[in-house]
This record gives sequence, structure tokens and C-alpha cells, in this order.
Amino acid sequence: MMMRKLTASLLSVGVMFMSVHAFAANEPIQPIKPVKPENAAMVELGKMLFFDTRLSKSGFISCNSCHNLSMGGTDNLKTSIGHKWQQGPINAPTVLNASMNLAQFWDGRAKDLKEQAGGPIANPGEMAFAHDKVVAMLNTIPQYKDQFKKAFNSDKIDIDGVTTAIAAFEETLVTPGSRFDKWLEGDKEALTKAESDGYALFKSAGCTKCHNGPAVGGNSFEKMGVYKPYETESPAIGRMDVTGKEEDRFVFKVPTLRNVELTYPYFHDGGASTLEEAVDIMGRLQVNREFNKEEIANIVAFLKTLTGKQPDFKLPILPPSTNETHRYEPFD
Amino acid sequence: MMMRKLTASLLSVGVMFMSVHAFAANEPIQPIKPVKPENAAMVELGKMLFFDTRLSKSGFISCNSCHNLSMGGTDNLKTSIGHKWQQGPINAPTVLNASMNLAQFWDGRAKDLKEQAGGPIANPGEMAFAHDKVVAMLNTIPQYKDQFKKAFNSDKIDIDGVTTAIAAFEETLVTPGSRFDKWLEGDKEALTKAESDGYALFKSAGCTKCHNGPAVGGNSFEKMGVYKPYETESPAIGRMDVTGKEEDRFVFKVPTLRNVELTYPYFHDGGASTLEEAVDIMGRLQVNREFNKEEIANIVAFLKTLTGKQPDFKLPILPPSTNETHRYEPFD
Repeated sequence: MMMRKLTASLLSVGVMFMSVHAFAANEPIQPIKPVKPENAAMVELGKMLFFDTRLSKSGFISCNSCHNLSMGGTDNLKTSIGHKWQQGPINAPTVLNASMNLAQFWDGRAKDLKEQAGGPIANPGEMAFAHDKVVAMLNTIPQYKDQFKKAFNSDKIDIDGVTTAIAAFEETLVTPGSRFDKWLEGDKEALTKAESDGYALFKSAGCTKCHNGPAVGGNSFEKMGVYKPYETESPAIGRMDVTGKEEDRFVFKVPTLRNVELTYPYFHDGGASTLEEAVDIMGRLQVNREFNKEEIANIVAFLKTLTGKQPDFKLPILPPSTNETHRYEPFD
Repeated sequence: MMMRKLTASLLSVGVMFMSVHAFAANEPIQPIKPVKPENAAMVELGKMLFFDTRLSKSGFISCNSCHNLSMGGTDNLKTSIGHKWQQGPINAPTVLNASMNLAQFWDGRAKDLKEQAGGPIANPGEMAFAHDKVVAMLNTIPQYKDQFKKAFNSDKIDIDGVTTAIAAFEETLVTPGSRFDKWLEGDKEALTKAESDGYALFKSAGCTKCHNGPAVGGNSFEKMGVYKPYETESPAIGRMDVTGKEEDRFVFKVPTLRNVELTYPYFHDGGASTLEEAVDIMGRLQVNREFNKEEIANIVAFLKTLTGKQPDFKLPILPPSTNETHRYEPFD
């Protein structure tokens, strides 16, 4: 009797387990897996650097200024504010789940997070500093020297180490545990009817052609404005800037839709301020479909189930400058 | 025998206890006591508001931008960067231990943290927003409404609640546990000889006339430039701006020296970039004494023992805006 019960319950667990896996495997979107960092000291170093305003010419702007981890890894502005309040050319993409992107920046000009991290530091319109000055700064701060030693087992600090550490930290910024992932993993109660209807429509309308995989995007370049041109004042031409090919004009990396409720405004120019607007425009331009109000509401309801576990760590405390450290003069 | 041993050890504990207390009581500086917040929901709300860039006109500047809790509660700049990169008139004082100040701002124009908190939000040179717009913004965000309800047990959000919550959070930002406090509490090994020599000189030279109490300052207004005038290009006239009295010209609130290693540059104009420079100038101007190099080194060594436990909490995750929330246009 006992044996039979045990066998039966083992069997039912087995069936449940199989059905969950079979279920998720058939979907165009997969759950996000938590990340276990290999080198904790490097992640800690990267976190400090990510929050350190001394990586900018002014001493005021850090990576976190535009990829604010309190705000979905973005600045929630159409385009970002750079050195001396310069207007950035493009919407800051979220750093959350960015490790899953096939390349970095909207035009994919950096092959990975490490290559990306060096960009804004030296970009005159962003942090406006210089790689050698960052390295010189870090070399005057004993606590940073210790942390580099722990992370790299070497006494040398160079920009390669800086960007490697920032990338290692950013790789931890994945957001598992969303309601949609719970649903994918078999918890059918995790979504409301409107939300699952929204997902069904999201698939049937063809949105998952581009927005798929664990990041619900980030894994292809696509033209913005397939059926109708996208109206914008933004001069950004996308991937053509990288390849020089006319066919890549207005081709951009498909953004992740993970945490999209938090990453407003939308598109490369921040031109859509609400999810409803974004879904409406995407429908007409990308899949040649005019969603009605209820359809839009359902898709938006689905999109809001993609919000996962946000960054969960203590505010980093930065080591103080020493007498040898560069003093920042933001108004010079 | 057992009884005698017990009595003896109880006695010795008693004597130790008395001696510690007697010792600290004789010193012009007292240890910082940890704070137990009464209303945890209000502190949590205040923390969110402190980090929320939506309290500024641009949507880019938060309280934490200039009172950066990763950097000793300051921005480590001579004077701060305000809306559209405006140059601030004065050095941002640390928010750490600011609850112990007799009044807020360098000129003491706000009587407490709550009154202070409303200032920068509406100051056109700082966050450049308006109190009613902040309240309207918060009222569009359900999670904020819930948090206000938890904190105040009321459905009303007003600017009074906003500043009360920010002040409640700031009151938690005390920094106990410094090496100097351990020494005050009886651990004679907590300071090196140079550090205790520095402290002895700090007292005998008269620095503790103004820099005393648990915050090592913050509890009086004093003239900057007693024996010799302070040379500066700053137009700030200090307390005279508040009282209108000529005798208050160049009278400023004495800053706390807690965590002074982290809060460079120094003085109301940020004119001294190192502690050595600051001690040298203070000696000549305030106590009519030219400290030699060793004396300065010892006082600086002592000052560095005043660094206490830094803010220790998780990065707050901010609730997202809704479709009804104001969209920020920092370049308008």
C-alpha cells in the first residue's frame, strides 16, 4: 500500500516535471536562469566601479547615472544627460539582462559588455573622461588596488581590468522570477486571463519573431519600420553606422522586453512614453496590424508580467580619494 | 571561594564600566550612538524619496546626487552641480550625522532636516522642481501611495509628508563605531601613538572649542577667519544672509568632522582639497597657530579615526511611473 502510494506520487512528480519542461520548451520565450558569479571579488569591484562618479570627467556621472539600478537599469529619459548636460543621441538601453544581448549598444557596435563598458567613459558626450586617467585615478587609491589584486591576482590596474570587472558585475544583473517565468515553469495561476490572452496574441501576431528567447529580444537586429516608416527626429541610422551598408539603415538591435514596465520611454529615440503607445506603433509598423484597445491592453498586461527580481545588493561604499587622486572640476 | 571570585570579577567589571564612562565623560567629544528608527515604513519611504530622481525637474537629480551615500554623503566636488549643470554657490555638506546639527545648511537657515529637505527640491539652481509637482507625481504611483499609507496611516500625500519621510531616513544616517569612538569607549589600543598625539594637540590647540560633541562640530556658528581673514572667491556671507546682522558676516555653521576623510574638499567653498591643507588653514585662521608638518600629520591621522560605519542598506528599488505620471524633459 505504502509502496504503491510512493510510486504513484513519484510518477506524478515525474509527469509534472516532464510537462513543465515540455511546456517551456515549446514556447518562444524561455525563463531567465539565475547567475552564479565565478569571481565574487571581481563582481564586487565591478559594482564599485559601476557606481563610481570618478570614472567621469566631472566626477559627477557614473554608469549608474544613466543605467540606474533603482529604476530598471535606465534613466527613464528619452535620451540621456551627458557631461555638462549634453543631450545624448539615443535612449539608454537597460543594463538588466544585457549579458544576453547578441551585441551591445542599439547599433551593436560593441561585441560584448566588456567592450561596451569602455565606451561611455571616454565618450565626450557622456562621461567625457579618458581611459588612462581612470587607471591613474584608481592607482592612487589603496582600497581599489587591493580589490583589483583580489579580483585579478595581479598588481597591475589597466582599462582592460576595469571593463572586465564592470562586465562581470553586469553579468549578475539578470532578473529571474517574473510572473511570466513562473507561468512558463508550470504555474498556470501565475497569469490572469488578460495576461495570457495578451501573450497568445503577442505570439499569433508575430511579435515573438523578434522578441523571443530568455531576454524576449536582444538576439537579432531588425529594421525599425518594416511596413511603414518610423517617424522620428532622431538622426540615428542604427546598424548602418557600423556596417556602412544602406540595407542596414534604421536597423537596430531588438531590445529586451524583460522589465519593460520599468524601462520607459521606449524605442531608440524614447519616442513612445507608454507601453500602450509602443505596442500600437509596433503593431502597425512591424507586424502590419492595428491592434484594438482591448488587444493593446492585453498585450500590455502580458508585458508587465515580465518584470523580474530587481538588483538585490547593498549600496556600495566607495573608497575615498587620497591626496594623490585627481580632483574633479566639473565647471572647467 | 566561588563567591569571592564572582564578587571580585563583578567588582572589576563595575570598575571597568565606571572608568569607561568617566573617561568618555571627560572628553570634549562623545561617541555616536546607533539610532533605532521608530517608524520603519517611514524610513523606507524616505530612502526611496532620497534616491528618486523624479523629485527634480530634469528627472535626473536626486538627493543622493549631491549627498551621495556611497561617498560619505557628499559629492566630493567644491560646489555642487544643479539643474542644467548650474554651478552651485556652496559645498554640499555631508548628510551623515546631519541630524546632530543645531540647524541645517552652512548658514543654518533651516531649523531641522525636515525643513532642509524641501529646499533643494524647489531651488531653481538645484533640483529646480516644485513641491506641488512632486506631490502630483507621487499621487500617480500606487506603490508610493501604499508606502505613504503605511508610513502616515493616511491617504493624503503632501509635501509635509515627503520632507518628514526624507528627514526620518536621514536621521538613520549616523555613523557609530569609528576607531576614535572605540578609543573613547575604553579601547586604548584603538588609536596609534600618532593618532592619540594628534587628538591631544587637537584639544590643546583649541580646535575642540568648536569641534566638539558627538558630531565633532555641527553645534555652533562661528566666524570663518578669526585671526586672519579667509581668502576665497566665494560670495557666500554665511549667517548674515539669515540674520541681516553685520556681525554675522562669514559666520558659518561649524561642520561635523565625522567621516571627514570621505567628505573632501573642505570648507564652505570647497577651497581646501586635502585634510593637511584644511588643518593648516584652520590652525592659522581659527586658533592662531602655525602647525608644523608633524603636527599636521598627527592631527590628520586623528581625523581619519573619525570614519564610522557607513550606510548599510540595500539599494532601494523605485516604483515605476504610470501612464499618468509626468514625463521628464531635461532639455526643455
